[in-house]
Amino acid sequence: MSGKSPLLVAMEMSSIRSIDRLTSGMGGRDVVFVKDRPDEEIFHDVKYALVWKPDAKLFSRLPDLEVIFSVGAGVDHIFACDDVPDVPIVRFVDPDLTTRMSEWICLQALSHLRQAPAYSRFQREHRWHELSQPQASEITIGIMGMGELGSDAAAKLSTLGFRVIGWSRSGKSSREVAGVEMFNTHRLEAFLRQTNMLIGLLPLTEDTIGIFNRKVFSMLERHEEIASPVFINAGRGGSQSEADIVSCLRDGTLGGVSLDVFEEEPLDADSLLWDFDNAILTPHAAAVSDMANMARHVSAQISRYEAGEPLQFLVDRNRGY
Amino acid sequence: MSGKSPLLVAMEMSSIRSIDRLTSGMGGRDVVFVKDRPDEEIFHDVKYALVWKPDAKLFSRLPDLEVIFSVGAGVDHIFACDDVPDVPIVRFVDPDLTTRMSEWICLQALSHLRQAPAYSRFQREHRWHELSQPQASEITIGIMGMGELGSDAAAKLSTLGFRVIGWSRSGKSSREVAGVEMFNTHRLEAFLRQTNMLIGLLPLTEDTIGIFNRKVFSMLERHEEIASPVFINAGRGGSQSEADIVSCLRDGTLGGVSLDVFEEEPLDADSLLWDFDNAILTPHAAAVSDMANMARHVSAQISRYEAGEPLQFLVDRNRGY
Repeated sequence: MSGKSPLLVAMEMSSIRSIDRLTSGMGGRDVVFVKDRPDEEIFHDVKYALVWKPDAKLFSRLPDLEVIFSVGAGVDHIFACDDVPDVPIVRFVDPDLTTRMSEWICLQALSHLRQAPAYSRFQREHRWHELSQPQASEITIGIMGMGELGSDAAAKLSTLGFRVIGWSRSGKSSREVAGVEMFNTHRLEAFLRQTNMLIGLLPLTEDTIGIFNRKVFSMLERHEEIASPVFINAGRGGSQSEADIVSCLRDGTLGGVSLDVFEEEPLDADSLLWDFDNAILTPHAAAVSDMANMARHVSAQISRYEAGEPLQFLVDRNRGY
Repeated sequence: MSGKSPLLVAMEMSSIRSIDRLTSGMGGRDVVFVKDRPDEEIFHDVKYALVWKPDAKLFSRLPDLEVIFSVGAGVDHIFACDDVPDVPIVRFVDPDLTTRMSEWICLQALSHLRQAPAYSRFQREHRWHELSQPQASEITIGIMGMGELGSDAAAKLSTLGFRVIGWSRSGKSSREVAGVEMFNTHRLEAFLRQTNMLIGLLPLTEDTIGIFNRKVFSMLERHEEIASPVFINAGRGGSQSEADIVSCLRDGTLGGVSLDVFEEEPLDADSLLWDFDNAILTPHAAAVSDMANMARHVSAQISRYEAGEPLQFLVDRNRGY
């Protein structure tokens, strides 16, 4: 023991390298992995917990908890637990996480703009065939959810040449992005009617469950030269209706999708989504938190907390994010 | 006849829409398509020709030619003809062409960074499996050819988070790009030794024929977390050895490629390249010239020429580009 209260970690770690990056970045503070300990152990004196989709009963084993750290930007996985104690919850906001998310979003937007699924099919057929191609500036990308991640993606998509518009409940974005018109909750239809590619970056709350459904997809604008409209979801699977996505891909209401999140994860091997040529699926890997940065973030916030300074990136429990 | 010397067009037009965009943008100047005319016709009084991979004998049929316009940024297809008259040759430089090229390059770089070919394979197998993932800043992209296209791509790849370096014969780039270190012809090896993803944007000249070969690929740097090194060619197929690419993909000297250009186009249906899982092929479609913009460009240059002003974007015959 280092004399410091240990950090309890409740998450699946994908690799030894990740564990090393986390533990070696904590400046000597002990790191306790819940999964290495007996199921019934009560962790007295643990003030800090870093969690991702923890067991529903976790918090009953942490009587002395003072701060909860979420491994991701979203915190719905915490509110899904029993008896979440009334302590501050800190989201993970990190330039690297943001960069990764924007990489994934730009990759998906460019894949659909440049008709990558169709060219991939031609390649499998050994077929040399050129498709006609709109300018990026002719395509409007509408982003729902304009926090840190949405604002960064908006700026990068604009740099690539797309027209970008944004929607958020308040009609405001975390950062102002030049040239990006914002829409609020009362102007959702106006926003959708001019959107060729819809990007979901919404937190999962009571208001957003199932929001991406046939009704919304039907309002999107079609572009004559590419398979559109396109729906891209990197937020939360609970915000989409997969039954509607399947039926909209079948009847052409949607021309393509890119999905990193699903109603249930892992996605069932029997899901109909896997086999659509114009669906690009990744296993909730759009923006994996780097553990060295995570250690830096958690250490910095614990230092602030112990010095009596206010914590940053706090979750508002009333909003749910 | 409008009284103006007509514009002769020698190229394949991909669609009716393209023909319309070109002719309607020429401000009343007649547009003559070579392919609609008898093979032996001599075009007296034609001062201006817009060409893309023309028939080798074309220029013998244009005794009064004063300016040659290339449909693309490259002009090797013109020098491949017989008896190219000693008149100015104007390259096509256009913000839209540049945007399209950068779209394609960013798409390819992101596809390899984010391991799209592997995830696509997992999807076909209905397999939920996450791969570990470096930060973009850990990947160095080296661009060979730092003219307008290379400079624009460098800026956009930097914005996406990659480390970018550039190589050109002179060690200079058309536009200065913040944070991009430049290498000249004497420092090729130093450039290659730190490059994880090599991008080819070179004109085809005597110096660049077959430059992308096993020797060059062997010097590239390997990154532990992604299938690298990667070679991406959007310049000219004549600058690459496809035999070497195939053998380097087979023995792991290359982890992946994206090719838009080929030694012979269209690529033969029997080429071994089609079937590599980690090869992404497109049919010389990375940056298709938009014909409305082409009309604007050609009209503007003809106006300058007829007003006695200097033409822009002139080819240097000694350099060959």
